[in-house]
Amino acid sequence: MNALGRHILAEVHGCDSEILNDHAAVEQIMVSAALKAGAEVREVAFHKFSPQGVSGVVVISESHLAVHTWPEHGYAAVDVFTCGDTVNPWDACNYIVEQFRAQNFSASETLRGVLVENSNQKAAV
Amino acid sequence: MNALGRHILAEVHGCDSEILNDHAAVEQIMVSAALKAGAEVREVAFHKFSPQGVSGVVVISESHLAVHTWPEHGYAAVDVFTCGDTVNPWDACNYIVEQFRAQNFSASETLRGVLVENSNQKAAV
Repeated sequence: MNALGRHILAEVHGCDSEILNDHAAVEQIMVSAALKAGAEVREVAFHKFSPQGVSGVVVISESHLAVHTWPEHGYAAVDVFTCGDTVNPWDACNYIVEQFRAQNFSASETLRGVLVENSNQKAAV
Repeated sequence: MNALGRHILAEVHGCDSEILNDHAAVEQIMVSAALKAGAEVREVAFHKFSPQGVSGVVVISESHLAVHTWPEHGYAAVDVFTCGDTVNPWDACNYIVEQFRAQNFSASETLRGVLVENSNQKAAV
């Protein structure tokens, strides 16, 4: 089975609430995660909410990373979606979990854009 | 069971390849999808790839919408993640599918940030 991409949804718990509420820190961690995994950063868009919480996305050549934080719960919803074979999304995910000082996390990987051979042509199904 | 958010991953197939390769059209469709679902748009970041394909994200107060297109396969990977009760992510998802003129799609919804009552406090687990 061939897929265009791999998409990790991570539920990250017991994080440092001060980090989760720090716009600059969250943005830096997400961009660094992309770079450390070998991705090429294309666009960065983050937003700080009042009274608390940060949302943001890093668009990479290989797809995107996204985060939404709830400092009051010590919780972050993290996505890492990569296409191609050069970037391992788990490298980025594990880095984020570590940098948020999470006590625990659960994550699942979903294949995106699974390709099947159909006579002489390849199509996404 | 209480959750902070709902996250739809949609595999959208048989789309109009010209639309999928049109940076402005894809961006407009994604922003319109957010607005039509009643979301508040905070940040928009899109990128056109060479020779083809568009990636982009709309950060909303209620989380985000993301898209990655492969015009050569008529395929788009679409995410709609919303928190709170005011926005129905399926409204945005169905609008995008329609606007991409998709022949078919499959989608799954995942709950994010499931909360459990733990003695006198509520925590994300």
